[in-house]
Amino acid sequence: MRKLLLHLDTSPMASVFDRIVAYDGGADEVLSYAGVCVDAVRDLVHGAIFTRGPKDLHNTAIFISGTDMTAGEQLLDAVQRTFFGPMRVSVMLDSNGSNTTAVAAVARLLQVVGDVRGRRAIVVAGTGPVGTRAAGLLARAGANVAITSRHADEAGRVAAHIRERFGGVVESIVVTDVSQLAAALGGAELLLNAVPPLGIEGVDVTDSAADRNGVKTFGALGVGTFKMKVHKRCVAKLFERSDLVLDAESIGEVARELMQPSPAPPSVPPPG
Amino acid sequence: MRKLLLHLDTSPMASVFDRIVAYDGGADEVLSYAGVCVDAVRDLVHGAIFTRGPKDLHNTAIFISGTDMTAGEQLLDAVQRTFFGPMRVSVMLDSNGSNTTAVAAVARLLQVVGDVRGRRAIVVAGTGPVGTRAAGLLARAGANVAITSRHADEAGRVAAHIRERFGGVVESIVVTDVSQLAAALGGAELLLNAVPPLGIEGVDVTDSAADRNGVKTFGALGVGTFKMKVHKRCVAKLFERSDLVLDAESIGEVARELMQPSPAPPSVPPPG
Amino acid sequence: MRKLLLHLDTSPMASVFDRIVAYDGGADEVLSYAGVCVDAVRDLVHGAIFTRGPKDLHNTAIFISGTDMTAGEQLLDAVQRTFFGPMRVSVMLDSNGSNTTAVAAVARLLQVVGDVRGRRAIVVAGTGPVGTRAAGLLARAGANVAITSRHADEAGRVAAHIRERFGGVVESIVVTDVSQLAAALGGAELLLNAVPPLGIEGVDVTDSAADRNGVKTFGALGVGTFKMKVHKRCVAKLFERSDLVLDAESIGEVARELMQPSPAPPSVPPPG
Repeated sequence: MRKLLLHLDTSPMASVFDRIVAYDGGADEVLSYAGVCVDAVRDLVHGAIFTRGPKDLHNTAIFISGTDMTAGEQLLDAVQRTFFGPMRVSVMLDSNGSNTTAVAAVARLLQVVGDVRGRRAIVVAGTGPVGTRAAGLLARAGANVAITSRHADEAGRVAAHIRERFGGVVESIVVTDVSQLAAALGGAELLLNAVPPLGIEGVDVTDSAADRNGVKTFGALGVGTFKMKVHKRCVAKLFERSDLVLDAESIGEVARELMQPSPAPPSVPPPG
Repeated sequence: MRKLLLHLDTSPMASVFDRIVAYDGGADEVLSYAGVCVDAVRDLVHGAIFTRGPKDLHNTAIFISGTDMTAGEQLLDAVQRTFFGPMRVSVMLDSNGSNTTAVAAVARLLQVVGDVRGRRAIVVAGTGPVGTRAAGLLARAGANVAITSRHADEAGRVAAHIRERFGGVVESIVVTDVSQLAAALGGAELLLNAVPPLGIEGVDVTDSAADRNGVKTFGALGVGTFKMKVHKRCVAKLFERSDLVLDAESIGEVARELMQPSPAPPSVPPPG
Repeated sequence: MRKLLLHLDTSPMASVFDRIVAYDGGADEVLSYAGVCVDAVRDLVHGAIFTRGPKDLHNTAIFISGTDMTAGEQLLDAVQRTFFGPMRVSVMLDSNGSNTTAVAAVARLLQVVGDVRGRRAIVVAGTGPVGTRAAGLLARAGANVAITSRHADEAGRVAAHIRERFGGVVESIVVTDVSQLAAALGGAELLLNAVPPLGIEGVDVTDSAADRNGVKTFGALGVGTFKMKVHKRCVAKLFERSDLVLDAESIGEVARELMQPSPAPPSVPPPG
């Protein structure tokens, strides 16, 4: 029985990126739908859960993507509300690559700096899809997080949304020019640049633990290889059971499994 | 050479259900098109019949679906008019699962009650896609069929359409509340409930030969397993030759083949 | 690693023809997008080039189709501008089958008549997608080409576009009725009919070196089998490397390879 991934994309064209990674992650066929809104979810999900018997449902899974993270969260919610009892399949949310990229970036950051509890971390462009997930994961790990945005209203709203979703300390800082960013960085030990920067000199989206004036800086794009590994491993896991929900936290666990060193081979070969 | 199923869906999103069953029925690849109208058929079908030589055309087939049975019938007609000589592929119509579900329900009913010639059968909600196909198949088997509907105009129109398509006796009954249904059931021996009921107490869409006040009741959803078996077998048959047209009657024949017991093994093993 | 063909179609429905030939040509999966305009290219191509490492990128390729050749040319240009350094995949343009059909027709013509330098060739309906490509290939081979059209403005514009793209001699002739065509044919030795004719008696779209009143006539549809062979071989070649650009001229080279006789087996079998 083939492994079928139902790909629900909120954007007008289904993500090529996510389709290719789905194939490389182990899906046999990817059934892509573009422009998916909440109203369409019920029929699409019924098609996924009513076609194969409960014991075969781990061969079907759902992947939610698109450029709009909020729309993706709404789809994830609608998908889960359509499930009942054993009539369900595993589902993953990764709108705009936000979860896998944020998980990879934060995992790399934690690997380098260790315990972040009580330490001040700035997420630049923290209102975008990758930024919100990264900020949430850092807050969950105990950091005092601040997200920057050019718009006061948006910054406050997004920070509240992150606190509600992940808990922890997340504040917002309005940054309209470089001088304000310098002030905002006061006291920060960690800086994660979630998207190509808005003209911030000396901060690079590909930074990976660079030291810039005493602030350790990380860029979301500096973790591309690990992000791909996490993404593909997550797709593979979707087909191992029918009740997985892969969102920021659970994708974070997949990343931790991947970072653990393989067990050393036994020093004495087994007899025989 | 891969078995390719061209999936033409009249609805805005191609049915997930039909795509998954197509894979499970043996299609190697499913090429789905949504929002297909009659005007688009010619180019789509030309793509199917002009790409492989006549002797290989049994590896390509067409599956028509969507929520609107009338639109599906029009596509089937347009598809067949595009064929010429050996330039044709097998084609199946199953808008809304109507044919496979109706065939499975009626096959189950005939299996239980035997000959229905001259017996009165009521199809509740008989103007929907499953109801019209079930009513037609029962009329074709010789039953005196009545379909119920809440709307007089629609009921009469649909009954005429069924008689024209399937022959036999099909009348319509307007039922706007439960008391009228009770009257309508007078003299009926068989009741098939084609969709979740409109508040009819004591009749269940999952009934399978339940006896309710002397009327044997059947529900379309009580035959899900057999419906899936019929659906998958039909998809497999599409790729056995290039001139099959699978609609209600021919799908009914597939169901009968599936219900026949396998031939007993020879009592004496062949010598040698 | 599966061979994935990203199929970008400028028409509202992705070509069934091109999807099927893609599978038969060796693509493992075809990812089709319809209604693709230049604005959408960047994200689609990024998905193709950022998902697999440079050494694996030959397993991904792009195929551009649709009924509008100009739109297809614009997509090809936009696709190539998105590539950078080793981040690129092979790409083929065949809007409306124009390149493969024109290449096959012209290859057949050259095979029959040999050197066309300085000879007068008429391409009937030369402003359509197949006609423009065929006229260009003939001009490139040295023929004095004239394309016919019913509209003076269009004919002149298209002839100029062909000269700019392919070089050589291409003029336009306005033909609004049969008598004008007869005059236009004066002095012509070769006639290629690129689409079903507009009422020209005695010229058939399936002609293959027919002799009609001293003019050798060729029809685009007389080369269907060879066109399919060229088309499939081109798809296969896309996956051999990551830097191929298959347009009229390079597809012409593929056709020439296919027309060459296989090398004779050695007359003396190798010892041993």
